[in-house]
Amino acid sequence: MRTNAFAEIRLDVPGWVDGFVRAGPRRYRTAEDRVRLAIDLSHLGMEHGGGPFGAAVFERRSGRLVAPGVNWVVGGGCSLWHAEIVAVALAQKVVGHYDLGAAGAGDYELASSTEPCAMCLGAIPWSGLRSLLCGARGADALRVGFDEGAKPAGWVRAFKARGLAVQRDICRAEAVTVLREYRDRGGVIYSARKG
Amino acid sequence: MRTNAFAEIRLDVPGWVDGFVRAGPRRYRTAEDRVRLAIDLSHLGMEHGGGPFGAAVFERRSGRLVAPGVNWVVGGGCSLWHAEIVAVALAQKVVGHYDLGAAGAGDYELASSTEPCAMCLGAIPWSGLRSLLCGARGADALRVGFDEGAKPAGWVRAFKARGLAVQRDICRAEAVTVLREYRDRGGVIYSARKG
Repeated sequence: MRTNAFAEIRLDVPGWVDGFVRAGPRRYRTAEDRVRLAIDLSHLGMEHGGGPFGAAVFERRSGRLVAPGVNWVVGGGCSLWHAEIVAVALAQKVVGHYDLGAAGAGDYELASSTEPCAMCLGAIPWSGLRSLLCGARGADALRVGFDEGAKPAGWVRAFKARGLAVQRDICRAEAVTVLREYRDRGGVIYSARKG
Repeated sequence: MRTNAFAEIRLDVPGWVDGFVRAGPRRYRTAEDRVRLAIDLSHLGMEHGGGPFGAAVFERRSGRLVAPGVNWVVGGGCSLWHAEIVAVALAQKVVGHYDLGAAGAGDYELASSTEPCAMCLGAIPWSGLRSLLCGARGADALRVGFDEGAKPAGWVRAFKARGLAVQRDICRAEAVTVLREYRDRGGVIYSARKG
């Protein structure tokens, strides 16, 4: 009798992530503090064998950290495990709702070390997040060799029309430094499949 | 001591899915056979309390079913669990690689009961899938109230430029029937958050 190969989808988040964020502050007051945590996660993720991308979900007003995210595509064996996707899934688990914008759920913000790729941008409106903070630009990721996918022209405006705030270029130079270091080390640029 | 809330992301796929596909054929020869399985999953998913969307990954040449997918956002408590995302994650688990297009991995096709939303479209290039078959159009989902997100203009052409084949309108009327039935039953249109 064959086993049920379709019983579950599971990502074991690398254990250092919990240890790292437990050792940090509970609250991240400014946009810079929040993006800097995402950049720290991108750097540590790279050091631990992941892709050079980090993200985190915060309560927008209080700055309380709700959930971190790291890129764990290669280690986790699944192309979905971008940092933003991991942060959103963990945040929804912590909050206990598939809609972070549901009545009574709160008001949540995502910080991302690099502007989200086409998949992650597409995931944000369904997540109930109300705000997005970005470090590096998508163009910065492209310059070191990462494929960002086809994003809708004018996505920032489209997000704002949905009531989703967007701020870019927060600590951009620090975020780009991690991307360049990854390239210079010869890290796997796994998303660059073209055909 | 608090427990590690960030230890894992997990979806328990509804048990009926495995039972259903085990009772079906091992191979799905034509594009219609493949999309019809996705539509059957969309219909059964709705009957079991999920959203009216289904998907499946196949070996393109042989038609062997690799993995099914159903929408389990509300039941699974996570906005990521669209049918296509579930099918991709299960297929990568079965194949044992985060890149379904990796050398030696094979040649895989995704069938979707409705054209993928912005998130799922964005996920496809990273997955290594080489071909996409769609039943209902995104416009059909919009008409019953589902928000599809902002998709890049000309995404079909952009996919083809990546070597990703796209066929649409396969058994479209059958797919639309399930969407309408969901609406007529007053199903949760959870993705329609606007602000």
